[in-house]
Amino acid sequence: MVYRAEFRCLAGCEGGYPLTQPIYQCPRCGGLLDVVHDIEALRGRTAQQWRSLFEQRMAGRDWPYTSGVWSKHEWVAPDLSREHIVSTDEGRSSLFRAQNLAPQLGIGQLWVKLCGNSHSGSFKDLGMTVLVSTVRQALAEGVAISAIGCASTGDTSAALAAYGALAKLPVVVLLPRGKVSTAQLVQPLAAGAKVFALDTDFDGCMAIITQLAERGLLYLANSKNALRIEGQKTVALDICRQLNWQPPDWVVLPSGNLGNGYAMYRGFRMLRELGLITRLPRLALAQAQHANPLYRAFKANAQQITPVSAKTTVASAIQIGNPVSAPRAMLALAAMDGVVEQASEDDICHTAAMADRSGLYVCPHTAVALAAARKLRANNTIQADDTVVVVATANALKFTEFKVRYHEGSIGGVRARLQNQPLQLAADLGVVVDAINALRA
Amino acid sequence: MVYRAEFRCLAGCEGGYPLTQPIYQCPRCGGLLDVVHDIEALRGRTAQQWRSLFEQRMAGRDWPYTSGVWSKHEWVAPDLSREHIVSTDEGRSSLFRAQNLAPQLGIGQLWVKLCGNSHSGSFKDLGMTVLVSTVRQALAEGVAISAIGCASTGDTSAALAAYGALAKLPVVVLLPRGKVSTAQLVQPLAAGAKVFALDTDFDGCMAIITQLAERGLLYLANSKNALRIEGQKTVALDICRQLNWQPPDWVVLPSGNLGNGYAMYRGFRMLRELGLITRLPRLALAQAQHANPLYRAFKANAQQITPVSAKTTVASAIQIGNPVSAPRAMLALAAMDGVVEQASEDDICHTAAMADRSGLYVCPHTAVALAAARKLRANNTIQADDTVVVVATANALKFTEFKVRYHEGSIGGVRARLQNQPLQLAADLGVVVDAINALRA
Repeated sequence: MVYRAEFRCLAGCEGGYPLTQPIYQCPRCGGLLDVVHDIEALRGRTAQQWRSLFEQRMAGRDWPYTSGVWSKHEWVAPDLSREHIVSTDEGRSSLFRAQNLAPQLGIGQLWVKLCGNSHSGSFKDLGMTVLVSTVRQALAEGVAISAIGCASTGDTSAALAAYGALAKLPVVVLLPRGKVSTAQLVQPLAAGAKVFALDTDFDGCMAIITQLAERGLLYLANSKNALRIEGQKTVALDICRQLNWQPPDWVVLPSGNLGNGYAMYRGFRMLRELGLITRLPRLALAQAQHANPLYRAFKANAQQITPVSAKTTVASAIQIGNPVSAPRAMLALAAMDGVVEQASEDDICHTAAMADRSGLYVCPHTAVALAAARKLRANNTIQADDTVVVVATANALKFTEFKVRYHEGSIGGVRARLQNQPLQLAADLGVVVDAINALRA
Repeated sequence: MVYRAEFRCLAGCEGGYPLTQPIYQCPRCGGLLDVVHDIEALRGRTAQQWRSLFEQRMAGRDWPYTSGVWSKHEWVAPDLSREHIVSTDEGRSSLFRAQNLAPQLGIGQLWVKLCGNSHSGSFKDLGMTVLVSTVRQALAEGVAISAIGCASTGDTSAALAAYGALAKLPVVVLLPRGKVSTAQLVQPLAAGAKVFALDTDFDGCMAIITQLAERGLLYLANSKNALRIEGQKTVALDICRQLNWQPPDWVVLPSGNLGNGYAMYRGFRMLRELGLITRLPRLALAQAQHANPLYRAFKANAQQITPVSAKTTVASAIQIGNPVSAPRAMLALAAMDGVVEQASEDDICHTAAMADRSGLYVCPHTAVALAAARKLRANNTIQADDTVVVVATANALKFTEFKVRYHEGSIGGVRARLQNQPLQLAADLGVVVDAINALRA
């Protein structure tokens, strides 16, 4: 069976484009693109056959089909030759049953999908493996691509730089000069990416990288590129697999640039179209109150977002006032009976600390989603016996400074109710014994 | 079939003790303990049956048997009731084929076992799940344990605090006042551990925690506790499973306190005793030149180490001059035709940078092992076509400061040959185009 996929206009303009074509927007309307699969061809296998195939590959040793992404090769990028795949076995992360945290959020069945336990430490690996592998195929087909580039100060550049290094392809990262510390940059620098610090702000970097991509000087790795969605959607497939092919009642995601919610929808929709599940979960997109254009649009029943000026938030990766994938998120919310919730800075910090105390260790974005889940349960949007999956998007080890500031009590406007600091004691056995006995009291 | 295991004296004194007994040294000779399994009972299943059982469990959904540790329940802690197991699905990490790095080290087949992609970010999770689960069983059996404690400034306290939080058991961490930053401490603090900063040095903390454990006031979680070895040995089983049940020719480990090398030996030895493999790999233990008591003993053909005063090394977790598990390591080296190699600070830093450039992202300890592997290949101890597995012990995201200092060129005495810094450019399309074109030249 030959499976096919191509780029098409998300808004429905005519025309299809091969996935190896460096194209980032519809040439007719300028809007976002989507990857469209030949669902009829995929129906050549039954739901049970697909389930078994995915499970067998992930349990096997036939790399790269052991990856959570590439075990679904036919559903992701069917035309891609196996030889071009660059994989770190991404997508094999745990679905962690948060039994201690669940009652604190009032939720009956709470699972956390730990996407941060990955090669570069965030869920971005899932999309980047598809993007970089496709670039390798494009190069093999003679497409001229001199480098892959993105404007990013965080997880995207880390993932791109790692996969670029694995593929031995040049990577260029643009960022605003003086606004990003070496610590934020150290993953792409370590992986050998060429980092250009430009004398402008982040929007200025984005404008330049877009022009470079339009002129064919760089292959664009920012999330406008629809290939990343294809990798990210496999999270939905693996969540279902890990729940014994039962979709949860809710999926809750932290949301900034808004591509991730659409990826989740794409995954669940394909599962339903191909009969692996019979219903879609409901979608909850969680925003920081300081960067909440989608929340505002949802509350206003608007069909489009109105860009806002994002204020500083501890959830720095979703501090985005004008998200590029807003139209994608709107589609996902409509199809999945979705809701949007927001979390204040105080709530984000407290919820992160509560999760950490329960034995998790969560990044601030994951805390946004957990805080939103609690609010949605409190107002009975989430029902008492619903199964809820919260997607943890990055490894909290990337956010040491956030954790330190919380436990030092130095995040402005936040009351660190779960603050924990070392107790200074004399080096005397009796003194330490007294301190231990005091713990029991 | 009833499988049994008990503590026995590593040096061979008479007497066995149940695994739930809080006992950390032989009551006769004061030496280290070992967990001894009933190998005859385990022979009741064939090698193929064990292989299939381990694989089925890891491929299944029967938590906690999906864990790399608990899929080997009978080989680890057979008397432990399933209900007491505290697991984060530890031990499911990738065996990464380092195809870019291998030729740079001169090694034909190089694999890196990424133990740092785990719940608390290091291989310590493997031992801590066994230790904390056993404490829960001991409590259920009526053993009085008020808290679990360790003296640690790093991965051990992070792992203990996380598993303690999951088990809802009090955790106490002792450390020297003023010598540890909040950043190093933030994982145990976030998990709610009680951190006591004592007015002494690390040895002073160790002396006090040992006394507390002897008096039954704390359950000891430092690596003297033989239970941790039982979890850590499963790395050997999973490496073999991932290599299709063929042992590699070499396993290379960074080594400080020296328990890890013995754990590896315990794993491979059980695999051979039970017929799952027919030969042991050779073992290479890698030390930082600044903390190399085992290397010195090996070069001198000594049967015991002579403690050294460890100098500061970027590989901070193995900056240990008087390793507690030295007798265990000596046994492992003898049985596995082992060698010891060392790496200088410059070599550690350069090798880490080289690995990062290849698409990995390694902690300094992993770099010690990679540097040692290169030296052993260069002097032909490792042969050209040998299969080499290097164990990556921790997540490099814990070592941002090390990476930053390298790429800023500020590690004293180290020439940062792969230093990478941002290029400052004007925000002008033409300027950026020129910079990109210069990359190709």
